[in-house]
Amino acid sequence: MSKLKLNITMSVDGFVAGPDQSLEHPLGVGGERLHGWLYPLKAFRGGHGEEGGEVNASTPFAEDILGGAGATVMGRNMFGGGPGPWDESWKGWWGDDPPFHHPVFVLTNHARAPLEMQGGTTFHFVTDGIESALEQAQAAAGGKVVSLGGGASVAQQYLAAGLLDEIVVSVVPILLGGGARLFENVGEAKLEQVESVEAPGVTHIRYGRA
Amino acid sequence: MSKLKLNITMSVDGFVAGPDQSLEHPLGVGGERLHGWLYPLKAFRGGHGEEGGEVNASTPFAEDILGGAGATVMGRNMFGGGPGPWDESWKGWWGDDPPFHHPVFVLTNHARAPLEMQGGTTFHFVTDGIESALEQAQAAAGGKVVSLGGGASVAQQYLAAGLLDEIVVSVVPILLGGGARLFENVGEAKLEQVESVEAPGVTHIRYGRA
Repeated sequence: MSKLKLNITMSVDGFVAGPDQSLEHPLGVGGERLHGWLYPLKAFRGGHGEEGGEVNASTPFAEDILGGAGATVMGRNMFGGGPGPWDESWKGWWGDDPPFHHPVFVLTNHARAPLEMQGGTTFHFVTDGIESALEQAQAAAGGKVVSLGGGASVAQQYLAAGLLDEIVVSVVPILLGGGARLFENVGEAKLEQVESVEAPGVTHIRYGRA
Repeated sequence: MSKLKLNITMSVDGFVAGPDQSLEHPLGVGGERLHGWLYPLKAFRGGHGEEGGEVNASTPFAEDILGGAGATVMGRNMFGGGPGPWDESWKGWWGDDPPFHHPVFVLTNHARAPLEMQGGTTFHFVTDGIESALEQAQAAAGGKVVSLGGGASVAQQYLAAGLLDEIVVSVVPILLGGGARLFENVGEAKLEQVESVEAPGVTHIRYGRA
C-alpha cells in the first residue's frame, strides 16, 4: 500500500501559513517567507524551468517535495477558487501545466467533473471524505507514495485519523505571529523522530507514526 | 558583557509546559514528558548524584543546561510559591542544595531578602524589571554566560525586548495539545539559525539574534 507523506514548512512559532489567507495571499500575509529555503535551490529552479541554483543539505527534501509521489491529496483551500459551489473557470493556482504531473485528489463538499490539465496532472474532486480520497490516491499512485499537499486543516484530519505515515517538518527561523497551525486538533496522534537534518536556514525533521 | 542564553525544550506543537500548571504539576499536565531526552543522560544523572547513563549527541546540550552559566535569571512562577506576597517558608522547588551553584535572580513584584542556600546558590529577588535583573546577573556572572531559566512569560519578555542573545530549542516529538507557548507575544523579534543537531528523540536547534 502506498504510504501517505506530508512535507510542510513551519515557522518556529508553529505556523504553516500566515494570517489572513486570501486569493492575493494564498499562504497568508508573510507566509511566502516560509519557503525562502526552497527557492534558491537548483532542484526547485530546474523544476520551474530556470537554470542554476544551489545544491545543499536541503536538496533531497526539495526533490522529495517536487517529485517522487505518484498522486497527491489536497484540501479545497489549497486548490483555491473560494468556498461554496464551483466557478468552473477556476482551474487551480498553477496555470495550464501544474507541477504535479500525476493525479491530484481535491477534497471538497461540491462535486465537479475531473479536470485534465497539461503535463499529466488531472484534478479529481472527492466529496466522500478523507479515507475515500486516500484510497483513490493510493490506487492511482502506481506503487509510489501519496503526497499530502495540505493545507493545515486537511493535514490535521489525516493526522488525527492515524492515516499519515510520515511528516517532514521543515522548521524555519521565522516568527509569523499568527496564521494556520499544523499541530492542533490532532487528537491523540503520536509521532516518533526518524531523522533531522541541518541545512542553511532550515532544519528538516522527519517524523513517523509512533 | 555576559551573553544571555535560553535552553528550552519544546513539543513539536509549540509548548514549553503543559496545561494547568500547579504545585503538583510545575511543568503542567504531561509537561514532564518534555524532558525525556535529558533524564537518561550520564551528564544529567551525574549532576544528580546518580551513576551510569548514556552519552550521545544530546550530551553537550545537557552539559550546557546543567553547568557553564555564571548566573541565572528566572520568573516568579519558576521559583514557585504561588502569586502574591511571599510565604518565606517557600525556598524554591530544589531543596537545600539547589542545582544552580551560582547567583539566581528571581523576577517578582514582591520584595524579599536574598536567600542563601547550600552549594553556592543564592536567590536574589528583583522587583525593578527584566533589564535590572539582567544587569545584576551579568555583574554576578564572573564573565560566564547568564542562563535564562524561564518560564515562558519571562522568556517572551526578554525575546521581545531584544535582550536574548541565544536560544537552544530542543524540539521533541510530543504533542501536548495545550499549555504555555514560548514563541508568542514576542513582537518583532528576529532569529537566525546557527546550528541544528540530531539526537535520539530530540532535535536541538540553536538560534541567534538576526
